[in-house]
Amino acid sequence: MANSIPIITFTTDFGLSDHVVAAIKGVILSVNPDAKLVDISNLVPPQDIFTGAFTLGKAWSYFPYGTVHLAIVDPGIGTARKGLAVDAGGHLFVSPDNGILTYVFEENPGFEAYEITAEHYYRRPVSSAFHGRDIYAPIAAWISKGVPLHQIGDRLQDPLRLQLPAIQRVKDTLIQGQILAVNRFGNLITNLKPTDVPCAYKILAGQREITSIRRTYQEGAPGEVFVVPGSTGYLEIAVKDGSAASVINIKAGSPVGVIFM
Amino acid sequence: MANSIPIITFTTDFGLSDHVVAAIKGVILSVNPDAKLVDISNLVPPQDIFTGAFTLGKAWSYFPYGTVHLAIVDPGIGTARKGLAVDAGGHLFVSPDNGILTYVFEENPGFEAYEITAEHYYRRPVSSAFHGRDIYAPIAAWISKGVPLHQIGDRLQDPLRLQLPAIQRVKDTLIQGQILAVNRFGNLITNLKPTDVPCAYKILAGQREITSIRRTYQEGAPGEVFVVPGSTGYLEIAVKDGSAASVINIKAGSPVGVIFM
Amino acid sequence: MANSIPIITFTTDFGLSDHVVAAIKGVILSVNPDAKLVDISNLVPPQDIFTGAFTLGKAWSYFPYGTVHLAIVDPGIGTARKGLAVDAGGHLFVSPDNGILTYVFEENPGFEAYEITAEHYYRRPVSSAFHGRDIYAPIAAWISKGVPLHQIGDRLQDPLRLQLPAIQRVKDTLIQGQILAVNRFGNLITNLKPTDVPCAYKILAGQREITSIRRTYQEGAPGEVFVVPGSTGYLEIAVKDGSAASVINIKAGSPVGVIFM
Repeated sequence: MANSIPIITFTTDFGLSDHVVAAIKGVILSVNPDAKLVDISNLVPPQDIFTGAFTLGKAWSYFPYGTVHLAIVDPGIGTARKGLAVDAGGHLFVSPDNGILTYVFEENPGFEAYEITAEHYYRRPVSSAFHGRDIYAPIAAWISKGVPLHQIGDRLQDPLRLQLPAIQRVKDTLIQGQILAVNRFGNLITNLKPTDVPCAYKILAGQREITSIRRTYQEGAPGEVFVVPGSTGYLEIAVKDGSAASVINIKAGSPVGVIFM
Repeated sequence: MANSIPIITFTTDFGLSDHVVAAIKGVILSVNPDAKLVDISNLVPPQDIFTGAFTLGKAWSYFPYGTVHLAIVDPGIGTARKGLAVDAGGHLFVSPDNGILTYVFEENPGFEAYEITAEHYYRRPVSSAFHGRDIYAPIAAWISKGVPLHQIGDRLQDPLRLQLPAIQRVKDTLIQGQILAVNRFGNLITNLKPTDVPCAYKILAGQREITSIRRTYQEGAPGEVFVVPGSTGYLEIAVKDGSAASVINIKAGSPVGVIFM
Repeated sequence: MANSIPIITFTTDFGLSDHVVAAIKGVILSVNPDAKLVDISNLVPPQDIFTGAFTLGKAWSYFPYGTVHLAIVDPGIGTARKGLAVDAGGHLFVSPDNGILTYVFEENPGFEAYEITAEHYYRRPVSSAFHGRDIYAPIAAWISKGVPLHQIGDRLQDPLRLQLPAIQRVKDTLIQGQILAVNRFGNLITNLKPTDVPCAYKILAGQREITSIRRTYQEGAPGEVFVVPGSTGYLEIAVKDGSAASVINIKAGSPVGVIFM
């Protein structure tokens, strides 16, 4: 499926200081000068596939059908890990096969994955240290020009998935979740959805017991630590006009407890 | 007024690491895939409306007529604060009604402001935590497609303005101004214009008395602290090949004195 | 030569927080609204021409012919330093004449340089503090619209070049190179190419003797400090799943020794 306006997005850990992301963009524009390039984030922490997956997972669905999402966080470069081209309900993805598309797969069980093997599209010579520039960039560009995925390689049945942090029922009145991410405002994004807490509850996080449950950020009192539904669909722990991450000394990956009352 | 090439700019405090700006851009491109997207800054300090206003205020006028400037620094989200769509001499703006357009209003007294109420343009459901994605982004995109502002909502007569730091005459020979911003080179940008200092003067800033007045940055001696007209139209305090912000321990909002001699 | 899709890239030390890069982009879009704008990096360390040259030098060649590369790291603004417009094998450049194009010149000995003097293209009035906005931006935009370089000014025979760090032969069994850059992963990029080390060798860097020579990053053992060919064409010193820059306390500009065995 070719787009009338081809869009390619970028989710990488290459940073914004080095020449690396620009080299990838140059390769893409050399193949498809019409491509519209949009950064999702190039500030994924180095080699942190989980944060890359989360960042892409919360952004891709807002883009038009046919957008090609290039996701490169690739600690396994140089190993036998495969490359993927994926169609998930008309949204297209190019990435290493290392779990960075886990949220995409979860939300699109009918996705189709292909293993990238069509070497005639690669940039030559292929550096063993920079598949982003030499393999993923040209593949994404050709897909944005309308090359169908079945011409990129064979179907791959079980691409790798990260084990996403699950909610565990410890007792009838206690479940345990996890902090997924900390955003720029210092809000702690949990993996708890409002439907996970159907009755009155309090949250344990770090050394804190949080009993203030608010419907909107503005309902919080100044300086108060409270729980609020966030824009990502998850409950967040926030401090009004402050940073919950500074007040409560926990980070992405830390557990949170929920006690029902 | 529809643009032949629709441009939309971004001035936000959402940062460059999270998925947030990308979600907004995806929503915009879903409405108007032709839009050309340009970041002014997404690194406005969290919830700092004043710095957001200054950053936008020094950039918008260089863009072509018809550009839509989306400005979202929104500590009041979830309260009754309104949303604005503004035409200032053919330059268009979408933002919360919290003063972030103050410099635009100052330079365009004939601006026309409209309160955003046309819910049929909103993205559904509207998250109480993310009006940027669900209200401002689609409104900006529809405006970039040529929807006239009077179809976005009713005229609003007195949108909020920040009280901009004024120059105060303390005595005949002493006026007091303020540091507006510190730029990446460590230059201290004051709110003093060259016309405010028509005769010989020295400046008091922090614990320093600055007597060296230069016409260009290059006239400064190495290591010297001096005053120079900056590219924003204001006087700046600079250190050649160094950072005035490091040498003089003051920051945005700090007062500066001017003594006429 | 006019491009069907005009691309303009940015390599500057203006940072991502201030309004400065956006003002330049606004000026460009006012002259050529069709221009596609791509950042190479705006995070070159303030006034660091060498890093600017290296960053541009490793990115420009991946872009299509006809791309206009705007490179502004300009500590000499306000002095008599000239402005350049350059054609290097069909790739176009606009910058101050201060050596920031050194790598471009090295790789394209047949380049043609012109001194920017065509004032009728400048933005008026020209600020002595912001040639990026008032001279380089409009010149780049007009070139992207097809204005030939000989209409920008006269030929300039010997534009400034930085003295690039050379490899020195100290003894038959000892050569000395240098760290060119540290990338986001903490890899130390040397100025040594694989052809400089034709026989068995070890490297001295900081207080370390590095004897582990690998062909790919993945061959390194966890925690091991090793030498590996990088994607820029130079040998890099790396630590698997870690930062060589943290383990070995050296930085860009530091010497490295190579002992042949």
